[in-house]
Amino acid sequence: MANDPRASYDLLSGIVSDSGDLKGDIVSDALSDVIMQSLAYLGQKQSRLLTCDDPQKEYFSFTSGKHKSRPVNKLLFSPADAAKYSPRVLNCDLTSIEKDVLERTLYTMAVAYCAVADLLGKGSDKKTPGTFFEVLIGHLVGRMFGVNPKNSIEVQSLDISGSLPTDFTFDLGPGRNKIHMPVKTSTRERVIQVWAHQRVIDGVFGVGRFKGILVCLAETNAKPGFGVTEVCLPGQWTIYQMFIAQLHRVYYFDVPKKYAELASAYPFIQVKTFASFFSEAETLAKAAPFS
Amino acid sequence: MANDPRASYDLLSGIVSDSGDLKGDIVSDALSDVIMQSLAYLGQKQSRLLTCDDPQKEYFSFTSGKHKSRPVNKLLFSPADAAKYSPRVLNCDLTSIEKDVLERTLYTMAVAYCAVADLLGKGSDKKTPGTFFEVLIGHLVGRMFGVNPKNSIEVQSLDISGSLPTDFTFDLGPGRNKIHMPVKTSTRERVIQVWAHQRVIDGVFGVGRFKGILVCLAETNAKPGFGVTEVCLPGQWTIYQMFIAQLHRVYYFDVPKKYAELASAYPFIQVKTFASFFSEAETLAKAAPFS
Repeated sequence: MANDPRASYDLLSGIVSDSGDLKGDIVSDALSDVIMQSLAYLGQKQSRLLTCDDPQKEYFSFTSGKHKSRPVNKLLFSPADAAKYSPRVLNCDLTSIEKDVLERTLYTMAVAYCAVADLLGKGSDKKTPGTFFEVLIGHLVGRMFGVNPKNSIEVQSLDISGSLPTDFTFDLGPGRNKIHMPVKTSTRERVIQVWAHQRVIDGVFGVGRFKGILVCLAETNAKPGFGVTEVCLPGQWTIYQMFIAQLHRVYYFDVPKKYAELASAYPFIQVKTFASFFSEAETLAKAAPFS
Repeated sequence: MANDPRASYDLLSGIVSDSGDLKGDIVSDALSDVIMQSLAYLGQKQSRLLTCDDPQKEYFSFTSGKHKSRPVNKLLFSPADAAKYSPRVLNCDLTSIEKDVLERTLYTMAVAYCAVADLLGKGSDKKTPGTFFEVLIGHLVGRMFGVNPKNSIEVQSLDISGSLPTDFTFDLGPGRNKIHMPVKTSTRERVIQVWAHQRVIDGVFGVGRFKGILVCLAETNAKPGFGVTEVCLPGQWTIYQMFIAQLHRVYYFDVPKKYAELASAYPFIQVKTFASFFSEAETLAKAAPFS
């Protein structure tokens, strides 16, 4: 095991590209190393509570000299749960893990390396947290479905053919749904791309052939000083869902309240905690009439 | 007249927000100041030819110490034409200006301040060139159509109402087309947003009600050292035009060859020089059956 979380990250990165098997055991082990190294590193750091707009949520940042990490959700961050349960979670063996424990374990696994990269990269490392998060999701979802994702789809239409780069797509086999799964640590103004890609896929392959499932870490944004706010645009999402395409699920590791509320009114965008993915994976995979 | 192009830019910026009349004479004068100050500043700078992938195009960068400007198209950059014709162009009085002269004048007017901001901002000023370009387009198109643009559209649908932030929209009045006009100095991977916004507008107001017209400066990208390349994704554009929405025109000040070729094969994306806008503005405004 390496002594620096970034060395573990580099190892993971190499293993992912060399093995070509994102769902494989060797990627599980490398992910586990990054997570454990990151938690060990963070365990030696100071932290500071942030003032939050939403009185029901508590956030803190890890600090290192004058640098601070992205906001971390205090109630969801649990190194103890991650140490105990992450090997089983990485193996998609979730028997008898309570949902709140699973939520804390998943959030801690996802955010730990991101916070490390914020500190070690002095705020300018935007790339490796995004890549780590993508590898984590690709591994967990690939392992759950038993199939590795692809990163582009071939578009064939009469005399025109081309390739559309996408985030993940999973082909679950004959008679089952296919999955289009964009993955973002946060969405901000770029999220319209997700609906636009879903629209292209619906147009090429037929509406409902690929289920669109967006997976995000959080929508927290640091404010000057030691504050935090959730940046949400539920009105925009409503318009996209009505007029561009229909996403089937949106999963967050730290669910923003304003997006969770979208599930209960037309057009009923189903925003949930990512922990729910594991319990409903079989439902997502099963081809069924629109309901 | 101020002595620093950035002071002129600040004046322009203040006038635009204070006057609320983007097409007005006072904005013409302020734009002219920025352009003339920028050309005076650039006239005192060194320049260096760039190696270009496309043997039919020549580019150079202005240099200042260790900083260099974005690539400037040598055949389209003409301070002499800009000095002579920009007052008339800013007034949309184009009588007897030859099309190649108009192209050079427009390109020089658009790129001059951007190159200045690259040098004075030491490569980190991404914002003011984009804003300047947007003001220039809003002014010229607004003046040509005799109407100022808006920056959002109201979406009303049964019991749901919201506001969609857009780039420019122009309402040309009863019985005439409306225009949806995104404006970008370059598009890169974010361009899918343009088609997605057009899709929303088509969905809300009916297909063909708003003509989608994308206006861009160029797609040139500096390469390490003193090289330049055009970054184009014509295959992606084809897929977006087929499966998301249909743009009516794409205008460039410096037309990339690979995009110009899109006009001649299905789905026939009409990519042209921005100089063409002035000669076909009346056609764009006139409501007519799909052809």
